[in-house]
Amino acid sequence: MKSHIFSNNILQLFLRGLLAFTIVCCWQLCAFAQDGMQQYPVPQTVSPQLQKFITCTPLLPYWNAHPRTPAEWQKLVDQSAKVMRQKNALLLAKLKVQVATTKLNGVSVQTLIPETVDPEQQGRVLLHIHGGGYVFHPDGTGIDEAIMMAAFSRMRVVSVDYRMPPKYPYPAALDDVFLVYKELLKTYTPKSIGVFGSSTGGGLTLALVLRAKAEGVPLPAAIAPGSPWSDLAKIGDTYFTHAGQDNVLVTYDGWLGEAARLYANGHPLNDPYLSPVYADVTGFPPALLTSGTRDLFLSNTVRMHLKFLQAGVPAELVVFEGMSHVLYQADPDIPEVQFHFELLRKFFVRNFQ
Amino acid sequence: MKSHIFSNNILQLFLRGLLAFTIVCCWQLCAFAQDGMQQYPVPQTVSPQLQKFITCTPLLPYWNAHPRTPAEWQKLVDQSAKVMRQKNALLLAKLKVQVATTKLNGVSVQTLIPETVDPEQQGRVLLHIHGGGYVFHPDGTGIDEAIMMAAFSRMRVVSVDYRMPPKYPYPAALDDVFLVYKELLKTYTPKSIGVFGSSTGGGLTLALVLRAKAEGVPLPAAIAPGSPWSDLAKIGDTYFTHAGQDNVLVTYDGWLGEAARLYANGHPLNDPYLSPVYADVTGFPPALLTSGTRDLFLSNTVRMHLKFLQAGVPAELVVFEGMSHVLYQADPDIPEVQFHFELLRKFFVRNFQ
Repeated sequence: MKSHIFSNNILQLFLRGLLAFTIVCCWQLCAFAQDGMQQYPVPQTVSPQLQKFITCTPLLPYWNAHPRTPAEWQKLVDQSAKVMRQKNALLLAKLKVQVATTKLNGVSVQTLIPETVDPEQQGRVLLHIHGGGYVFHPDGTGIDEAIMMAAFSRMRVVSVDYRMPPKYPYPAALDDVFLVYKELLKTYTPKSIGVFGSSTGGGLTLALVLRAKAEGVPLPAAIAPGSPWSDLAKIGDTYFTHAGQDNVLVTYDGWLGEAARLYANGHPLNDPYLSPVYADVTGFPPALLTSGTRDLFLSNTVRMHLKFLQAGVPAELVVFEGMSHVLYQADPDIPEVQFHFELLRKFFVRNFQ
Repeated sequence: MKSHIFSNNILQLFLRGLLAFTIVCCWQLCAFAQDGMQQYPVPQTVSPQLQKFITCTPLLPYWNAHPRTPAEWQKLVDQSAKVMRQKNALLLAKLKVQVATTKLNGVSVQTLIPETVDPEQQGRVLLHIHGGGYVFHPDGTGIDEAIMMAAFSRMRVVSVDYRMPPKYPYPAALDDVFLVYKELLKTYTPKSIGVFGSSTGGGLTLALVLRAKAEGVPLPAAIAPGSPWSDLAKIGDTYFTHAGQDNVLVTYDGWLGEAARLYANGHPLNDPYLSPVYADVTGFPPALLTSGTRDLFLSNTVRMHLKFLQAGVPAELVVFEGMSHVLYQADPDIPEVQFHFELLRKFFVRNFQ
């Protein structure tokens, strides 16, 4: 009887220990699955303002969404557009930028005019192509980056409100961007036009130059594809190694991969107009590419950069410490964001003629 | 009695299930601890030759060593030197590079002479500072990078066999490098000298320029600190985010951190001569910095790059897809390695006068 009690006690102790251990194991294992993120210390090597975006930013509510119908997409797009409208209104007021919606060559555009245009940059223009995975930011809601660029560079910025899927898949977006670019060429010399945009906007910046090159249209002075979506397929090292490190995109396997397939609409994802990393970039204008050490698109960025270097294109790379995808445009009060736009400004000014 | 058997069976089932689950949990949890590495797919976006170095390279046997005595350090250093001697002999023969050991200003150096020196680069020299965490590669065994540079650039390379701890901690290494640099200035104009090196060699390259600047000695034409150890403390995002991704360094918390403290020998790690990321780099010559998407020192590299940009120093950044720490010099048969040395060559030629 005594030995029975003893073994029962041992068993109980063992069970309790095992249970506690199992709970710890589960907690560890589920840390990633729970909210999509691996846990790392916040880098002390960035400004306090940026640190806030590394710790306190909640993940996008749709980071792991898998919309199946146009209505399901629309719901997400509307949800995001609402947030963007508020952000843009605040930015416009704070940075004293005027916005006007017009049409160029039949395509809706927003023109952003800073309070004071740099006198030396009169007669020059920056063409902006917004991001959002080819599906987000309709109706001119994707202009936050364009507003900051106008303010920090004191240049005119024209942002393309291109058509998007589900209704208008590839090549509608590229067609629209190309139409606007050709229209700008009627007012500006090619060497007075700079093109920039992030993520999908970076991919479209590259696709635009490829299209212009193919159709014999003069190329712009310079391009700044920020963290460009250069490979629409899940091909590239940091799609894997930075999954759960990047608190903006989190993973390819949520809405992002769905958006890639939605836009491609059956076209092979390695078509250079969809994935410019497979393009022949010979003769491209000078390029400035930007990414971050936690960016899911770091490989998209550096693969494109290496491609440029191999083709002899003057291409510069900037990788920001601790930044997830396109955090370099998160908020105009972040010193690193101000520095980023100053780098862009200097880059374009250096390359304009 | 029946219910007793029943509950015993349930208990057994529960226990077995729990045990199996625990084993799975442990296996998952220990995956990192076992061999130090997280598991990721091998990127298909790099050459097959490079892929081999991402999958098949065994970790350094001492990646997690914590030597406590000079004798324990010596054992590791000897172990590594043996491997390096074999590698260097193969490289010298394969790439047809001649090596001569001499003294410059009392410091031992290896001079690497390629089969044919580029006639346009006569009268120019590249100063090489080897890596190895300030403790590895004594007696001229750290010349593998120098051999490849001589062969691919067809320039003369002088590699410094600087003194190292435990016997000679900071500032012995820097003193030696500086002595050699000053001696080269007697033969070469400053604008005919380029300085390069990786990891610790990158850190020492930066510290050398800082020292020259402080002492009013003319600066070299250009520098190429590859994946420089710019912060000797565990400060920087990718010390954390790339731990277990980088199959060369693996982690700061093994021999690497020990080596930092050994070299510093009580000096604060944020002394700019130890951690050049804290230096005033105004007036530095053009710099080319190189890293990889899995590099534990990606933050060391990009923080330094940003520091240069902020100070208005012309600094270029290259980040190689899929590469762990300094894999860009792993083997001369890797196309990416050849491309890397070609970038270095062009960079120096562009900046020589």
